[in-house]
Amino acid sequence: MADDFLRLIHLPQAVELLLGSLPDVDDEVETVSSEEAHGRVLARDLVAPEDLPGFERSTMDGYAVRAADTFGAGEGLPAYLEVVGEVLMGRPADMRVVRGQAVRISTGGVMPAGADAVVMVENTELSGNTVELVKGVAPGDNVLRPDEDVARGSLLFEKGLVLGPPQIGALAGLGIDRVDVFRIPVVGVISTGDEIVPPGQVPGPGQVRDVNSAALVAAVRQAGCEARAYGITGDDFDRLLTTSAQALSDCDAVIISGGSSAGVRDMTAGVLAAMGRPGVLAHGIYLKPGKPTLIAVCDGKPALGFPGNPASALAVFRELMVPLLRKLKGEAPGPGTGVPRKVEALMDRSVSSAAGRLELVPVSLHLEGDGLIASPILGKSNLIGTLARARGQVRVPIGVEGLEQGQSVDVELLE
Amino acid sequence: MADDFLRLIHLPQAVELLLGSLPDVDDEVETVSSEEAHGRVLARDLVAPEDLPGFERSTMDGYAVRAADTFGAGEGLPAYLEVVGEVLMGRPADMRVVRGQAVRISTGGVMPAGADAVVMVENTELSGNTVELVKGVAPGDNVLRPDEDVARGSLLFEKGLVLGPPQIGALAGLGIDRVDVFRIPVVGVISTGDEIVPPGQVPGPGQVRDVNSAALVAAVRQAGCEARAYGITGDDFDRLLTTSAQALSDCDAVIISGGSSAGVRDMTAGVLAAMGRPGVLAHGIYLKPGKPTLIAVCDGKPALGFPGNPASALAVFRELMVPLLRKLKGEAPGPGTGVPRKVEALMDRSVSSAAGRLELVPVSLHLEGDGLIASPILGKSNLIGTLARARGQVRVPIGVEGLEQGQSVDVELLE
Repeated sequence: MADDFLRLIHLPQAVELLLGSLPDVDDEVETVSSEEAHGRVLARDLVAPEDLPGFERSTMDGYAVRAADTFGAGEGLPAYLEVVGEVLMGRPADMRVVRGQAVRISTGGVMPAGADAVVMVENTELSGNTVELVKGVAPGDNVLRPDEDVARGSLLFEKGLVLGPPQIGALAGLGIDRVDVFRIPVVGVISTGDEIVPPGQVPGPGQVRDVNSAALVAAVRQAGCEARAYGITGDDFDRLLTTSAQALSDCDAVIISGGSSAGVRDMTAGVLAAMGRPGVLAHGIYLKPGKPTLIAVCDGKPALGFPGNPASALAVFRELMVPLLRKLKGEAPGPGTGVPRKVEALMDRSVSSAAGRLELVPVSLHLEGDGLIASPILGKSNLIGTLARARGQVRVPIGVEGLEQGQSVDVELLE
Repeated sequence: MADDFLRLIHLPQAVELLLGSLPDVDDEVETVSSEEAHGRVLARDLVAPEDLPGFERSTMDGYAVRAADTFGAGEGLPAYLEVVGEVLMGRPADMRVVRGQAVRISTGGVMPAGADAVVMVENTELSGNTVELVKGVAPGDNVLRPDEDVARGSLLFEKGLVLGPPQIGALAGLGIDRVDVFRIPVVGVISTGDEIVPPGQVPGPGQVRDVNSAALVAAVRQAGCEARAYGITGDDFDRLLTTSAQALSDCDAVIISGGSSAGVRDMTAGVLAAMGRPGVLAHGIYLKPGKPTLIAVCDGKPALGFPGNPASALAVFRELMVPLLRKLKGEAPGPGTGVPRKVEALMDRSVSSAAGRLELVPVSLHLEGDGLIASPILGKSNLIGTLARARGQVRVPIGVEGLEQGQSVDVELLE
């Protein structure tokens, strides 16, 4: 154990180790109705089953014409056409436009046979049955071809895309009522520590309520996964092992959130080692907060020992667990994946940072004049007070010595 | 109608008009369990009901001592203390430390009477019952006072805060099991247009499936509100009025998403005018896409006529509806409110923009070498194809003429 205690790794390496250990999710597919697919991850490339709009369609309100009849028309030399009918919305265009004729049409209307362009209503003046055109059009102007919006057989969405409102809309537009998505991963959350009592219980002397179960369950849900809480095990190896093994069998990943003492951490490391192969891969991360994080893979499933400290636990969740869950969900990495919302702010005091580790400085934010001020949240603990006050964090990369008072920083919003 | 048609306003003015018309949400409060409060908006300031940790607590693994006994201790001149016991986690410290004594303690343990500081285990060496200290401590070192994390009566969270994982954790830590939150606003969604058919129906000639109901319902849910879909009304004034009035009575806001023709737009304006006072406030926004947006307030509730075009409808939703829903939810504006996730990219072609309007250029994104390339999605329509391909948008403010090929731009991610 003494040697293991020193096995610290860098955060990107920790993420890589865990991602590399994950099973392929390709078989974990379920079919859901498109209405329920919001937020889900597409499990197969989706190809358009038909052309859209599917008919030749006007993109303007105006007159469907033969472009040849308008050549050379302008303010000084208008063209005059006879209006022979109107295309009704949602109806076939059951007329034919021949030389010298025009048909009224609305945006979205079906182009009548014979017409090959639409003159915008703004460039026309109607008098009786005659429409005056003060601008010519070329063939195809203001007309959408039947497959111009979406062509049948074209790739609409790639596997691994998260389905948001635009995608849900597109599915509706193509009449796709069911869609194959990846199963939602389940994350087991366990709290351990003899001093931890459930939130509903009044703590006795030396006891504290379980913060991490509630916070981590909420974080798992926010990441679009299902959380299952296994309660508090106390500092008992066998009990923790039994509960953890059950959670690992039920779930796709397990988080054991430790008590605050080194003893619990060692016990958790022992449990992770006993749960499966290869077991514990690292005993800590060059990260503050979050150094005492245990990283294990047990028979193909990630199992993590999180710091007991709530602000640290949530930081590790964001840095390590969120990328992991993204992969477990089947999300394909794309431009912008994992980019947080950020605001620019000025630091109102300096913060020093130890060399050789990534530091995430929690800050509160307030407006001063036109600009934002970031106040680092210092103090002895990363407990509830930090959770309550921090609205953002400033990333101090390895190799940067700290942040200066008055320095402009990018604050990542915590939400 | 002809005059009204010209009543265009700028986007910030549109947002302001709508926000100014909203009723106070202060009475719309419900009590939920803290476990279910994730994502909800706090309806009252929350004051800490007790001190945390509530007892004097060690923040390190080590030895609880009287600081005076360690003064001057160093590598060259260690202090030696007698170890008289150990504080167990989650238990009261039922011993007393007197001069020359030390007690083993873990992070989170209760400080025993008489001790006023903790020496970190790293600065000690135990031999038998005697611990050697190679570093002195001052009173209070590595000790958290009973109210140092959170003080009873202090303001924990302000009204209007969205409860995320840190807040849910803090509620658990303080034993707060129920919390007052604002009611979730309900948004009615109506589609209109004679050419629109439900997604489950095979469109006849000239018909298209209803994209906007599905897309807007998903967008409303993504914004943390409840959506109620009222179906498709067709281009019938009385039917649209009946349905809209019902939706307005059931919901906190209504979106009527128009067909594509000018006729439907005029009809929708008439319906909005007939639904209540003051009625239609503006007939369009200096915004692309999204110009033909009808803005109305009917007896204290916002009612909006959205463009029929799906990409436009979603753009208007993001720009106009999201700030509106935030206020309806009771969210207090804070630093970072409404800031989108962004990535930097290079434009791979130029885009011109008309003066006098805000333009939102949809782009697809791809990686080229180390950098991102943004390709503007051009073409005649803002239909399904745009929904399918756009992963972000570039904001071209009023007064900016366009974007140059090769220009570095901030791309707001669409999700």
